[in-house]
Order: sequence, then C-alpha cells, then structure tokens
Amino acid sequence: MSLDDVLQHIDEAVPAATERLKSLLRIPSISTDPAFARDCDAAADWLVAELQSIGVTAEKHETPGHPMVVGHADGPGPHVLFYGHYDVQPVDPLEQWTNDPFDPRIEDTPRGKVIRGRGTSDDKGQLMTFVEACRAYKDVNGALPCRVTFFFEGEEESGSPSLVPFMRDNAEELRSDIALICDTGLFQSRTPAIVTMLRGLLGEEVTVTGPDVDLHSGFFGGLAMNPVRALAGILADLHDDRGQVAVPGFYDGIPELSDDVRRQWEALDFDHAAFLGSVGLSQPAGEAGRSPLEMIWSRPTAEVNGIIGGYTGDGFKTVLPASATAKISFRLVQGQDPLRLRAAFRQFVQDRLPPDCEAEFTGHGASAASVMSTDDPAFEAARGALSDEWPDAAAYVGCGGSIPIAGHFKEILGTDAMLIGFGKDDDAIHSPNEKYDLESFHKGIRSWARVIDALT
Amino acid sequence: MSLDDVLQHIDEAVPAATERLKSLLRIPSISTDPAFARDCDAAADWLVAELQSIGVTAEKHETPGHPMVVGHADGPGPHVLFYGHYDVQPVDPLEQWTNDPFDPRIEDTPRGKVIRGRGTSDDKGQLMTFVEACRAYKDVNGALPCRVTFFFEGEEESGSPSLVPFMRDNAEELRSDIALICDTGLFQSRTPAIVTMLRGLLGEEVTVTGPDVDLHSGFFGGLAMNPVRALAGILADLHDDRGQVAVPGFYDGIPELSDDVRRQWEALDFDHAAFLGSVGLSQPAGEAGRSPLEMIWSRPTAEVNGIIGGYTGDGFKTVLPASATAKISFRLVQGQDPLRLRAAFRQFVQDRLPPDCEAEFTGHGASAASVMSTDDPAFEAARGALSDEWPDAAAYVGCGGSIPIAGHFKEILGTDAMLIGFGKDDDAIHSPNEKYDLESFHKGIRSWARVIDALT
Repeated sequence: MSLDDVLQHIDEAVPAATERLKSLLRIPSISTDPAFARDCDAAADWLVAELQSIGVTAEKHETPGHPMVVGHADGPGPHVLFYGHYDVQPVDPLEQWTNDPFDPRIEDTPRGKVIRGRGTSDDKGQLMTFVEACRAYKDVNGALPCRVTFFFEGEEESGSPSLVPFMRDNAEELRSDIALICDTGLFQSRTPAIVTMLRGLLGEEVTVTGPDVDLHSGFFGGLAMNPVRALAGILADLHDDRGQVAVPGFYDGIPELSDDVRRQWEALDFDHAAFLGSVGLSQPAGEAGRSPLEMIWSRPTAEVNGIIGGYTGDGFKTVLPASATAKISFRLVQGQDPLRLRAAFRQFVQDRLPPDCEAEFTGHGASAASVMSTDDPAFEAARGALSDEWPDAAAYVGCGGSIPIAGHFKEILGTDAMLIGFGKDDDAIHSPNEKYDLESFHKGIRSWARVIDALT
Repeated sequence: MSLDDVLQHIDEAVPAATERLKSLLRIPSISTDPAFARDCDAAADWLVAELQSIGVTAEKHETPGHPMVVGHADGPGPHVLFYGHYDVQPVDPLEQWTNDPFDPRIEDTPRGKVIRGRGTSDDKGQLMTFVEACRAYKDVNGALPCRVTFFFEGEEESGSPSLVPFMRDNAEELRSDIALICDTGLFQSRTPAIVTMLRGLLGEEVTVTGPDVDLHSGFFGGLAMNPVRALAGILADLHDDRGQVAVPGFYDGIPELSDDVRRQWEALDFDHAAFLGSVGLSQPAGEAGRSPLEMIWSRPTAEVNGIIGGYTGDGFKTVLPASATAKISFRLVQGQDPLRLRAAFRQFVQDRLPPDCEAEFTGHGASAASVMSTDDPAFEAARGALSDEWPDAAAYVGCGGSIPIAGHFKEILGTDAMLIGFGKDDDAIHSPNEKYDLESFHKGIRSWARVIDALT
C-alpha cells in the first residue's frame, strides 16, 4: 500500500486518535510535585499499553524518579529513536483556566479547532503525533517502514535528573541511526522546521564585595568604594559599542553559517518587528551587522538575568552597600568551549575590579551548543517529507534556547537528533489554558508518516 | 565670680549631675514605637521640671506627635537657642545588651568610666551637658551670661515630622542670634569640633523598563534589549576615570575651601587608613586630587544605594528582565542646587537610554547643603572656648551626612547653627550597649560653660 493510503487512513482516524490523546491528557502527570507521583506512573503505564496495542514491545523502567518507557518495533529500514515526555507542568494559577486542565475539551476558535488542557502541546499532543503515525502506518501496511525505538521520559519538566544515568546504563538498547524529538514548534506558527542548532548555556553568578558591612553613605560616601558602582562598571563593559561581548576570545572558533543555511533563513522571512512588537520592543539589540535570526540562533550572547545589591525596599535608605550580585548567562554556539569561557569571564571580572573590591563566583551549569550534522541524508529526506505536507517549504532552523536532550543523544549515544514539532507560538505552554491546534495534531501525524516513510 | 569658679563648681557637681542624667535615662522615651508615647510625654515633663528647677520659664507644647519643650532664661548677652532631643532609638536586639538599657550603669572600662544605657550619648547625655552648664553657671553667678532659649524635641529618631511646622508656627519665640546643637561628636574621638558644613542630599530612584514582560533569555537573548544592561551602562557612566560625577554641571558653583579651613583640616591629621581599615577598606575611592576629608565633607558624591532587577532568588533563572531599578543618592555641598541637579541627572539618564528602553523617576528628598557663616564672631569665640578646655585645638569640620535641623534653623529662623558635641566613635549610638564617656559628660559641661561665657 502507498503512503497516500496511510495519509488517508490518518485523516479518517483523527477522531479516534483525538479520543486516545484525551485519555492520556486526563492523567495529571505533574512531575515536579510529589503528590502526583502515582499519576506519572499511571501515564507511563498508559503509554506501555498504548505501544503494546500497536504491536510494540514496550516496558516501563523504574528510575530514582519517575519511570521511563522504552519500546521497540522491528522494521526493515534504518533504526530511528523517537523521544517525547509524558510529564507536564503544574497548572497554577488554576483560577485562570477556562476549563479543568485535566478534562481536555475541543474548542472552536477564530483560528480553528483546538484541544485545550495541560500537556496538549507540551508534550503529550506532540508525542502522540508520532505514535498515531506509527499506528496508522502499521494499520495500513502491517508493519513500520523502519526499525523504531520509542523512548518516553517523565521528568522533563523537572530537570530530567534520571535521564543521563538511564541513557548511560541503557546505551546499547537506545542507540540508533538517528533520533527524532517532537517537543518544538512550527517556525512563526506556520513553517515546518528541523532544529539543527541549539545554543549552549553558561551560567555565572558573581558577587562583588567591598566594605565589611553596609556603610552610611553620608559618613563614607565619596571615600569608600561602592561595590554596586564596581559591578555596574563590569556589566557595562560586557558589551562593546557594536553589541559584541567583550570577554577576550569570546568569538574564537565560531563558524559562519553555510551559504545553504543562510539562504534558508533568508527565505523564512522572519518578521522580527512582529516578534519584538509582541513584547513591546522594536529594535534588534544584538551585534551590529547580524540578522535578527542570527542574533537568536547562531550568535552567542551575554545577558544579565538578575542583579541585586544594597537597599531595595520601599522608600530610601542612604546605605553604601557591602556587596552586589549579578546572575549572568551566556548562550553559546558552535565552536565555544563553556569551561574556557567561564575562566575567561572570571578573568574579565578580576581585571576590572577596583581596589578594595573582591569577586566571588558561583557556576550555574555549563553546556556546549548542539549542532547537527545535516550531511546525514536523513535530514534532507525529512526536510523533503515536511515540505510535501505543509504549504511552506521546511527549513533547518536554530533554537536560541537550550534543549539538553539533543546534546545527550550526541554525547552518550553518538546519535544526531532531528527536532521536529508542530506547536504554535500561542499554545501557552507552561501557562494557563494551554492548547494544541487540531491542525497541528492532524498534520503532525501526517508529517511523521511522511518522515518515517522517507527515511527508508 | 569668674569662669574658673564655674568650672570648679562643675567638677564638684559631677556626681549630682550624673544622678540627674540617670533619672532622665530611666524614662524609655522611644519615639518611633507608639507603645512608648506616654514615656515620651514623661520625658518632656521631666525636662520642663528640670529647666524650672534652674529658674527657666519652661513649657511643654503639644504637637500631632510627641511634645516639644521650650524654655527661656533671661540674660545680658546675645540670645542663643540650644537644641537637643529627648527621644531615643529602640533597643532591639535586647538580648545583646549587658544591662537593662533603661537602667543606666556607671562602668569602669580600659578607656575610663562610661555611663551605659539607651540615650546616654544620643542625645540625653549630650543634651544634659548644656543644661548642667547652665545650672552651674547660675549656681555660681546667680544668672546666665546670655539670654538662652531651650528647645527640645521628641521625634528626632522618627523623622521629626512635627519639627518644621512647629518652628514655622513659633518662629518668633524661637528666633535667636545663634543656635547651638549638641548631637555630634569629637573628631576622631579626641578633637573638639564645630560642624560648619553639612552635606545636602538628593535622592533619586530610576526604573529602566524594556520589554513588556520578563522574557526567556534563550528565545530573546541577543535580540531584545536588556534593561539591566542599559541601567548598568548608565550607572557606570555616572563616574569618570578620575572619580568625578559625570552629570553635566554637577560641580558648577562649588567653592574651594578657604585657606584657613584647609589648614585646620590638615592639622586634624585625619587617619583615613584607620577609618577605612575599620570597615575592611584601604583606598580612598573619591575624586583624584582631593584629600580624604574633602571627599567626605566638602565634595559632592553620587552613590548607588540599591539596585534590583530580574531573578535574584536562589539558583538560576534564564530570564531577560522587563525592568531594573536603582536608588541613587547625591550628597551635595555648598553651591549645588538640588532641584537643578535632579533635572540634570534625569536628563543624563535619558541621554543614555538605548532604543526600546524608558526611564521612570521617583524623587526621594532634595535638601541643599548647610554651610555656616563663620564670619559671625560667635564661631571664633566658641572655637577658642573649646580649645581652652581640650588638649587639641578645636577645628571647624564638615559632616558628610545630612543633619536637617541645622538647615531648618537657617531657612525658617534665619539663624546659623553651631553643632558642637562630645560623642566618641565607639559610643554605639543606635546599637546595643550605647554608652557615653564620663569624660565626654564632664568636659562637655565644662565646654558649654566656657562657650556661653565666651559668647558674651
């Protein structure tokens, strides 16, 4: 039977697929709250049963936290691993929801039908697009077109503490030719995209200390060094006049985009004015001479995430503070070594400390960027399949955030990952009234059927 | 009878004077806590009776807060007004006191006898030095050498809300040739000093806003302007490389010290290394080319008193903050107009805002510096009197802080004030175990006897 038969079957089965998704959504598998531990377990059981119902050999694996679900289905083609997560975010503030977050509803909206409830988009709805694609493919053809390993975790929303140990302990079982991850979105809610660049993250906290105690700014002001002044000077130096990060060596080893990717990004016609306008801004504030997409996807950054020092309550207190602290994060790209840059940043601070000030540092994570080898023909095959399904041609895109799972597949299993997802910008993930468009669900299932078909 | 007779009488009367002081100290006149309102009233009554016992016509005046005490004693010479405050600071943390703060004790210490208890130094002990000098002068001579108005307030430790209205309403009764204020200390705990310069204070709070909401630094970092970065840049610009405040026009109109005052300050031999060393610092951090005493007394400053923005809790959050706020105070000196500088500072900030950032300002007080006209012969007379009493010659000094009462005398009554006090740096005012040296008390009484004698 042909792919068209599978796609037609998917179209007919959407109502049944939606009911199956609702059944999973009704399980309040909030991973971060111990009160819902049994529900996380129930969601894992539900997935094991679901996979078994389409002939997959599936098992729940206990961890120190919530269980993993691993399933295997034989097939003739290459070996693909599909990753998703069955845990969801908490639902506070509950009073802002228009329905019970765990009693999902189909709603008509001006932009089409949506299914509303916690986890609809992040990540149960997305996860089920792949499972439903496999169900349809098998229903029509009796078997999958490639060997598939299913890998579902239940701790993604609480920092994935068990993930790396589990991947290390089960590397043989999980190793595949390519990993597929469905936890991202359509670019600008419209264009299918394969994320091939994820920025890394270096977190640093620096406390500049001066006097032993807070001083009276009348008695000491003008004579004693103020640590806020010292810290402000350091933070002001962090960017030069052209918006570049001034830490020595910061840009060493960063490659330029390939012409091919640059063309794809230009074709995306990113509406940065609308993107910035949605949060009350208008001007790209990054490196001069870089496009807005480069600024958020392929160029590194330094951002102050928080700063505090001295008296910050109501009114006024004429204190000369004993210390000031800033939390600073660097988004890293290909070619940047987090630990080398941590040392360079700390030296940068030390070099700028005035007399009588000292700096103390706390590191908060250091992960390198992930960049996929799109030379693997699987990438072009998947891009073609997505382009066939959607009105816009699919593109390789970046992601300014850090999705650690992609790096783990590379580091632990030696496998590149394709991040393909169908979420939209207004899905309100992590917020009240999360939703997933039925279009995302339906065309998502069709997309995966096309992709696994194309990978053979 | 001669001044020597008065001084000898003071020496003999110290035990009785100490008992009178203890009696006042036993009244827990904490002005900031409504639970002690009756005690504040009792302290005012005590002072009325005390003044009456030396022949002063004294009255308690009700205010919306705690009462004022005003008394008058005729005399032949010029009219002087003496100001002190009978209210005291709270005593928390009580467990750190070695005795009941309102059961004052005489203690032998390695540095001499002290009287320990709340208010001993700030300001009951100091206030009583003047009252006791008058008592002795009258005991010996039958009358005071000049006309004296006594003016005691009970709200100094809680912001003096009733002071200005009371002074305005009773300006005629309070107007005098010179005001004497006893609420300061010996310079370096040793040298008698008349404060003739008090810095003013301009308080400003600025909030720099950027995006409408806190942003995810992965998705927006590198593209969106970060208000902390903008604010840090502004604060870093606030001082130039030579430690000068960079607000345009900031130093316009500031006079240089007279040669006479400069010589007096040089003679003070200020141990800035010890002063800074006591709080863990070593380097004067003010304007290049200025002496440490100029930095804290006669030169203006800009200090960040507090800063906050973004995530400041435990751990890390990769937020790009929507806003950042700093509280900034400027200590002002002679020649600086607070309102003109407020406008100049706000323009300075506006000129440095990057695109997409806005600044909101809140003013927190604006008071000009107070500088006394030492041309009035009373100043040299008092300085000579103090030099006669103490081993070191007395000096005109500055005070980096702002003591509003001096400015009020000038503005409301048109009267210059001499701030003369005998506190020492280790008196622990506002802290547990406050004390006043019996030497301060005894020589303080003798000092005032000499001063009022010299003013005639």
